[in-house]
Amino acid sequence: MATRTLLRIDSRCGWRWRAALPVSYAGLARGQSTTAAAEPQRPEMKTEVPGPKSLQLLKELSAVQESGAVQFFADYERSFGNYIADVDGNLMLDMYTQIASVPLGYNHPRVIQAFKDPKNQAAFVNRPALGLFPSGDHVQRMRQTLMSVAPPGLSNVQTMACGACSVEHGQKAMFMSYQRRKRGGEGPSKEEMESCLKNQAPGAPNLAILSFKDGFHGRTMGALAVTHTKWIHKLDFPAPDWPVADFPKLRYPLDQFTRENEQEERRCLNMVRDLMATWEKKGCPVAGIVSETVQCEGGDNYASASFFQGLQDIAKENGASLMLDEVQTGCGATGKFWAHEHFNLRSPPDVVPFAKKMLTGGFYHSDEQRPTESFRIFNTWVGDPSKMALLEAVLEVIKKDGLVDNSKVIGDYMLNGLLDIQNSFPAILSGVRGLGTLAAVDCPDAATRDKIITLMKNKGVHAGTCGTATLRLRPTLTIQRKHVDIFLDIFRGVLKDLK
Amino acid sequence: MATRTLLRIDSRCGWRWRAALPVSYAGLARGQSTTAAAEPQRPEMKTEVPGPKSLQLLKELSAVQESGAVQFFADYERSFGNYIADVDGNLMLDMYTQIASVPLGYNHPRVIQAFKDPKNQAAFVNRPALGLFPSGDHVQRMRQTLMSVAPPGLSNVQTMACGACSVEHGQKAMFMSYQRRKRGGEGPSKEEMESCLKNQAPGAPNLAILSFKDGFHGRTMGALAVTHTKWIHKLDFPAPDWPVADFPKLRYPLDQFTRENEQEERRCLNMVRDLMATWEKKGCPVAGIVSETVQCEGGDNYASASFFQGLQDIAKENGASLMLDEVQTGCGATGKFWAHEHFNLRSPPDVVPFAKKMLTGGFYHSDEQRPTESFRIFNTWVGDPSKMALLEAVLEVIKKDGLVDNSKVIGDYMLNGLLDIQNSFPAILSGVRGLGTLAAVDCPDAATRDKIITLMKNKGVHAGTCGTATLRLRPTLTIQRKHVDIFLDIFRGVLKDLK
Repeated sequence: MATRTLLRIDSRCGWRWRAALPVSYAGLARGQSTTAAAEPQRPEMKTEVPGPKSLQLLKELSAVQESGAVQFFADYERSFGNYIADVDGNLMLDMYTQIASVPLGYNHPRVIQAFKDPKNQAAFVNRPALGLFPSGDHVQRMRQTLMSVAPPGLSNVQTMACGACSVEHGQKAMFMSYQRRKRGGEGPSKEEMESCLKNQAPGAPNLAILSFKDGFHGRTMGALAVTHTKWIHKLDFPAPDWPVADFPKLRYPLDQFTRENEQEERRCLNMVRDLMATWEKKGCPVAGIVSETVQCEGGDNYASASFFQGLQDIAKENGASLMLDEVQTGCGATGKFWAHEHFNLRSPPDVVPFAKKMLTGGFYHSDEQRPTESFRIFNTWVGDPSKMALLEAVLEVIKKDGLVDNSKVIGDYMLNGLLDIQNSFPAILSGVRGLGTLAAVDCPDAATRDKIITLMKNKGVHAGTCGTATLRLRPTLTIQRKHVDIFLDIFRGVLKDLK
Repeated sequence: MATRTLLRIDSRCGWRWRAALPVSYAGLARGQSTTAAAEPQRPEMKTEVPGPKSLQLLKELSAVQESGAVQFFADYERSFGNYIADVDGNLMLDMYTQIASVPLGYNHPRVIQAFKDPKNQAAFVNRPALGLFPSGDHVQRMRQTLMSVAPPGLSNVQTMACGACSVEHGQKAMFMSYQRRKRGGEGPSKEEMESCLKNQAPGAPNLAILSFKDGFHGRTMGALAVTHTKWIHKLDFPAPDWPVADFPKLRYPLDQFTRENEQEERRCLNMVRDLMATWEKKGCPVAGIVSETVQCEGGDNYASASFFQGLQDIAKENGASLMLDEVQTGCGATGKFWAHEHFNLRSPPDVVPFAKKMLTGGFYHSDEQRPTESFRIFNTWVGDPSKMALLEAVLEVIKKDGLVDNSKVIGDYMLNGLLDIQNSFPAILSGVRGLGTLAAVDCPDAATRDKIITLMKNKGVHAGTCGTATLRLRPTLTIQRKHVDIFLDIFRGVLKDLK
């Protein structure tokens, strides 16, 4: 891997650097686009994907674990920027990026620099019990990283190891704040303290979280209780009897179906209201409402700002908290740093879990959600400072390179391209939609969608799926027009062949 | 931080190296003990702990999160081997090691070497969605790390990010295998597939996990449902109505109370049997039994091999799986690599979660616990290959240096020392117990225990707590007699002052 030094970071659409090695990069003029120089120009395909080496490794991996989800074995040393390499020598434009979890692309020079910075070494080789013994630079790092991009109005943050844990502990914060309000400032009773140890009321109260059909929040028991996507995620696991509301099924493009969509959102909000009342009557009041800002795993389903405003109103009317899950939508891809900034909420959401592109899990929360006792939100690691050392570099690049704006500009460009293609293939594609570089389009059925994905992959574009028959696009934040052009070109070619 | 090169690894009780820098290490003879040379000779205390710098940082951290659990801010660059440094210039012998999660001590040269190895760089800067796109070296790394230390008879492993997630997904494996057995080879029905999405039976069946009083398994909803330690862990969170059996309350030393302890264990096993029958009758059969091998957070409570054999028998009689949680007890500290190897079980446990000293989370499991469909045990990251790159170095040192045996030898030495001290202070100490270097002793009450901990800390020995009034010791695997001597000396001094 070549050592590259960061030269200038002043562009809206990507970083720029001077390559020290290999020699072929050395002639780069100041200001010449990075990716143009150091990234491959195009995908390069040697075999079908998965190729023979991937298939052999898959066989070996299957000896020690169920591995049916593996698509191919990657070569992360050779992957670069927006391109992922595999062990069979293929190089694909990556429009899925590890389920939307690669912020700047592979082997970004600034991230490598942070990894090699001697001041970060101790964080990588000595993982602390962060809630007990944080390092001396932890506070400053929290300020420079997580707090520097905190959602407006949220001044508390708690790190966690992954997305599911972040949702789980965010739920705990909501349960605690609900019970605290109910106690009106009194401490817990002896009966509560004793009964909770046996999983019994009143200490373990009968409380619910309201969630949405097709919502996805993770796969541990609490996160899974509010997840309603595919049976494969949920079958065989006991689950609490919590209310599940319909999420609006909007028609796209949104501006052509304003009235129908408003009606649909009203219907869903009324359902939320009804469910809250029903569960209250059942003696299992709703302590919190959980929604993604865009339902990703469930099919890239959008709802309007006005829907989320309404949802927040309902939460407030009922004394419940509102969690907006930004695990997949946070960190700039939607054209705002947090997707919920698009919603113009009257006050901040109460809890905002994050992970994926943020490299560390965690959740932001309001003062009201802050536990009043220690060890309530806790575990051994509660995150990983080494991920924050990398995040520091990532956020620096996002800010200096204007990558949040880039997501908007390139996202619009991509969306227009997708609409064009949809117009060319109306029998195959429908419902093109997107926000920033989050983009999706529906196919007639899963088989057609999967065939398109496979054909694209074999031509060098790696895309994802969601919902039942949706193609899901999740590029890096450094994507440029030329990448979009390559994707659109190959997508169009595949659809032509399919016809 | 000095760069040190590994010279010889041939001792039972610690590694040996030649120091390249600073100059003061350069004269070390071949074979001279590492820790003797490179570690501090003794604790060095400048202030009380937490000192003024820690207190200032704590104030700042509290601005962004509830931080009451923080004990001090550490200086991980200056920490070395068995000594942890803090920001106030104090250097403490660490007998707690980040809640038992530091295998070799701080800044171990071999771990630093793995961190700096260019072949590992890609794993640190490109975190994959491991279940979809593992790297080409993943299979080999799995073999060299996790599979090379797999518990006897368990040939499957699934990585996860942390201990709680490992327990949660281990529980899911038990629920799935239970339902699979019930279906007798048939696939799930349409009704099951649809109802599970709404958290309803039959897809989300009414099944339980049996767990133990004072057991601790984590703080996400599924792990917390089988955790029964302190109210602070559980209060305000809804919990499933699952059976909770008594864990044996044994009297120590075990060999002096054989008959009483046998009786107590029989009582608890009978209770398990009764609870299983009761829940079966309730229509909520027990799909799995969960226990730690040693109850750590709950007070370092031991049970005999015969108890665990009985527990496995009951599980098998009832068609339930057995999970033995080794998150805190695994990775060599008990004098066996896995604590359950002490139990001579007739067949392997079904699920063994790990984390902490293993650096990555995960769980081993039998073939029967392997999901038959993909994406059942899954999330975006499912672990972190960079942790496995470090684990590779850790396991290499453990094996070459015989650190599992070291735990036994030094553990016995420490236990004898503790028994001596207990004999000197019978009014203050009781119940000294241990397995390998896992060791604990009871104080009359929490206040006395906490006072001892504080006094020890201010003299340079950092120890932990568990249960209601127990002092918990969790040194690294590289601990030597001289460390134990320093600890015992300071412990004895503190108890004398207390008298």
